[in-house]
Amino acid sequence: MKILASHLAGAWTPGDGPAAVLVNPATEEPLAHAHGRGLDLAGALAYARDRGGPALRALGFAERGALCAGLARAIHAAREELIALAVASGGNTRGDAKFDLDGAAATLAHYGELAGKLGGGRLLADGEPVQVGRTARLAGQHAWAPRPGVAVLINAFNFPAWGLAEKLACALVAGMPVLCKPATATALVTHRLVELWVEAGLLPAGALQLLVGPAGDLVDHLRGPDVLAFTGSSDTARSLRAHPRVVAEGVRVNVEADSLNAAVLAPDVELGSESGQLFLADVARDMTQKTGQKCTAIRRVLVPAARLDEVVAALGERLAAITVGDPARDDVRMGPLATAAQARDVRAGIDRLAAATRPGWGDTGAVTPLGVPAGTGFFVGPVLRVTDEPRACAAMHAHEVFGPVATVGAYDGDPHAAAALVALGQGGLVASCYSDDRDWLGRFVVDAAGWNGRIYLGSEKIAAMSPGPGTALPQLQHGGPGRAGDGAELGGARGLALYMQRVALQGDASHLKALVGG
Amino acid sequence: MKILASHLAGAWTPGDGPAAVLVNPATEEPLAHAHGRGLDLAGALAYARDRGGPALRALGFAERGALCAGLARAIHAAREELIALAVASGGNTRGDAKFDLDGAAATLAHYGELAGKLGGGRLLADGEPVQVGRTARLAGQHAWAPRPGVAVLINAFNFPAWGLAEKLACALVAGMPVLCKPATATALVTHRLVELWVEAGLLPAGALQLLVGPAGDLVDHLRGPDVLAFTGSSDTARSLRAHPRVVAEGVRVNVEADSLNAAVLAPDVELGSESGQLFLADVARDMTQKTGQKCTAIRRVLVPAARLDEVVAALGERLAAITVGDPARDDVRMGPLATAAQARDVRAGIDRLAAATRPGWGDTGAVTPLGVPAGTGFFVGPVLRVTDEPRACAAMHAHEVFGPVATVGAYDGDPHAAAALVALGQGGLVASCYSDDRDWLGRFVVDAAGWNGRIYLGSEKIAAMSPGPGTALPQLQHGGPGRAGDGAELGGARGLALYMQRVALQGDASHLKALVGG
Repeated sequence: MKILASHLAGAWTPGDGPAAVLVNPATEEPLAHAHGRGLDLAGALAYARDRGGPALRALGFAERGALCAGLARAIHAAREELIALAVASGGNTRGDAKFDLDGAAATLAHYGELAGKLGGGRLLADGEPVQVGRTARLAGQHAWAPRPGVAVLINAFNFPAWGLAEKLACALVAGMPVLCKPATATALVTHRLVELWVEAGLLPAGALQLLVGPAGDLVDHLRGPDVLAFTGSSDTARSLRAHPRVVAEGVRVNVEADSLNAAVLAPDVELGSESGQLFLADVARDMTQKTGQKCTAIRRVLVPAARLDEVVAALGERLAAITVGDPARDDVRMGPLATAAQARDVRAGIDRLAAATRPGWGDTGAVTPLGVPAGTGFFVGPVLRVTDEPRACAAMHAHEVFGPVATVGAYDGDPHAAAALVALGQGGLVASCYSDDRDWLGRFVVDAAGWNGRIYLGSEKIAAMSPGPGTALPQLQHGGPGRAGDGAELGGARGLALYMQRVALQGDASHLKALVGG
Repeated sequence: MKILASHLAGAWTPGDGPAAVLVNPATEEPLAHAHGRGLDLAGALAYARDRGGPALRALGFAERGALCAGLARAIHAAREELIALAVASGGNTRGDAKFDLDGAAATLAHYGELAGKLGGGRLLADGEPVQVGRTARLAGQHAWAPRPGVAVLINAFNFPAWGLAEKLACALVAGMPVLCKPATATALVTHRLVELWVEAGLLPAGALQLLVGPAGDLVDHLRGPDVLAFTGSSDTARSLRAHPRVVAEGVRVNVEADSLNAAVLAPDVELGSESGQLFLADVARDMTQKTGQKCTAIRRVLVPAARLDEVVAALGERLAAITVGDPARDDVRMGPLATAAQARDVRAGIDRLAAATRPGWGDTGAVTPLGVPAGTGFFVGPVLRVTDEPRACAAMHAHEVFGPVATVGAYDGDPHAAAALVALGQGGLVASCYSDDRDWLGRFVVDAAGWNGRIYLGSEKIAAMSPGPGTALPQLQHGGPGRAGDGAELGGARGLALYMQRVALQGDASHLKALVGG
């Protein structure tokens, strides 16, 4: 049995203590063991601060970007091996696996390119100089500098490659060393990535460390300049935010957590139109891609009351075409959930929704998967629930069911009413709306903007080239207010801010110009 | 006896329960009572959300800016009355009072002007559109929208006008309604400001409410979209950050807390030069202005070992000229501390420093104040402590003594060594350095940037027009990492971000352009 070691302070360390067993979620075949005890995490953080931090801060932005570009190339070079690993260990179809791995490589490559444009400096200018004295001689200039600590990246099980890459790219370009902790269940992919990068010697010593297994006493050793970037459940996010060490030291925490992403169909859109077809395709894909285990998946669908039945029927037709089974098979379109615990949670979530809604498609998710013995694997089929009264349906807005499950609700077609229903989710990563009516869009967006990290506007002119709302692009902010954690990642250069300190420089204008490389 | 009422849900409400007595800190004469119980704080927050929020969000940026400009004019119109109130209730000299009130008016006026330039839109573009599809038709555009909650502004006793204004200006321009809670001890000035603004009807109903007295159960009623902006001690900041409601709802918290701001003299500067004189004047002023009760006051002074004695002597000379006493007198240059508790804390802090340093001037702060009976008032005289080994002097770096107290330490003249000593403060609001050697400045700034929210570069060319490091300008970020709370306020339009949600809009480029007013 393969043992997944951690890579700490420059060495592979298996750890000890009881083993967590990683299994293939379709076949339940054991794949690897991880042991999380007996690791010197305080030492690892010190190694990052003493070795990785100075090494990265000695580089300019462009040089740090070149590091990211190298990591991206290494993913491409091992793409087939990594896809196979993701299919076996994550319940991913080949398409799901590519989504994760290509997303990771594209994000690292994007930041490599972006950093190249930021030049060779060590301070990054933020805006233009401003006059703050009687004459222009006394000026102010904002600039970004690397935070002199370590970035601890804690990721969720659903994107073992992309989830790491989006945080890692930003931290490295910003100039912060990283200690990453993937979710144990799907850590095989992350582990292999780090192994490939370490073997190829792509990063300075201390710039990236890997902790496989439980976090142990990691958080107890954080300090003020450190950053804790977390993707996962709201419950864990709360316990991290309230952790005595985090509070005492004022450790910066970024959270990307639960989100009941809504898709809204405007009254101007006929289902047969390009916009209508885009809407149906986006909902069906963003319910079922990665078996619904995407933080950006569509959980709530709001449609004009007059179109409710038509939409439910059309979505049901698309969901009916999705074959569920062992994702290693070419004829399977949707694999199992990643773990037994996820399957239990999703089934409980479906039961909660079922008590408050009527069935639309898939009833409560019972399914006979293709290519696995009966009773094996963590399978749940696509489920569409329906309500005529979404305002009164608390279950629809209050619990993220992290699987292939969505609820369709009727509204009266008014953009303000739609935005108010979206807001019942208490803050989301992304909302989508489908309309070719610019006035409707404007009124919806102004009301919904404060409640969402991203708003996707589906319309006929972009239908042919759109990735849909469920893809986090490196150019656009990822993270949303309220329930979604109030975090912000990616968004081009905006994504560096989490790992940097903004400093206002005040003094002789010529001195400031020299400092920011003007 | 005047009773300071709160202004909640559109009405003045005195509250009930035991009275807090506000006194003149020079004479200990009682000035007013405040009662903090029996107030409907949940109702006040609901009033802000239901009335103030929609009213402000219905305005464009320019209209919200006009509100700020009106508040600034009202301060100017009542300037003499407000100065007298600050002298009586805050221990302020007339100069201290003007610093606070003129700072408040200037900040509100600055944001009024800035918002005018942002135009009449309701979404604020953040950067340019970017292509995210195969063609430019599919684009991304970041924008800022008001957070759909209430901004709770909790301020410290030292700046009852400016402290409110810097938060209020940003929140109003951003489009968030405000509930402000000043520190009770000096709430007379804040109360009078709000009274003036309410009497003149300068703001929409629900846009600004005032809570005088303890916070009661205020925090228990906060929600995810709300913002809690706090200035005060690190201890209180920790308890707010860990408050179960804040953690459960993910309320956004901004903190501006303890900061051991350092001033560093570079080896190239002779004390007799313009830069040297600027250094001495800045240190003496930023130790004693507002009796050292400024979050940006200089607490640590680092000078090349060869200049230690010369600097201590020159600073002692300047401190000797500072007459301490009743600030209502024209011949007094420094008043008392604001409260008996502050005086106790400062004396304890001086004792802690005295155990680890030698005296430079003022010994432990005993003083005979001018114009008050012996034993009356909360007076502490200026104190300069000295150490040859600042690296080994933990007391110098670990406790902010919030009074007219600083410690001078020797270093070897190396910019990296100086930055490392600054970093022992574990994060500060502002560091200052005095040098005309561009290479020295560059090396110091790159090392110090990650540890400070602002770095002030004192040099001969700006000496004649500089306000020194201790003035928070609206154009420049105020807030620092680590111990200072990891917050950010002001900095021009950057200061709006705390009260807004950034949203990435993704769709047809022409739709996006219409949305952000392009």
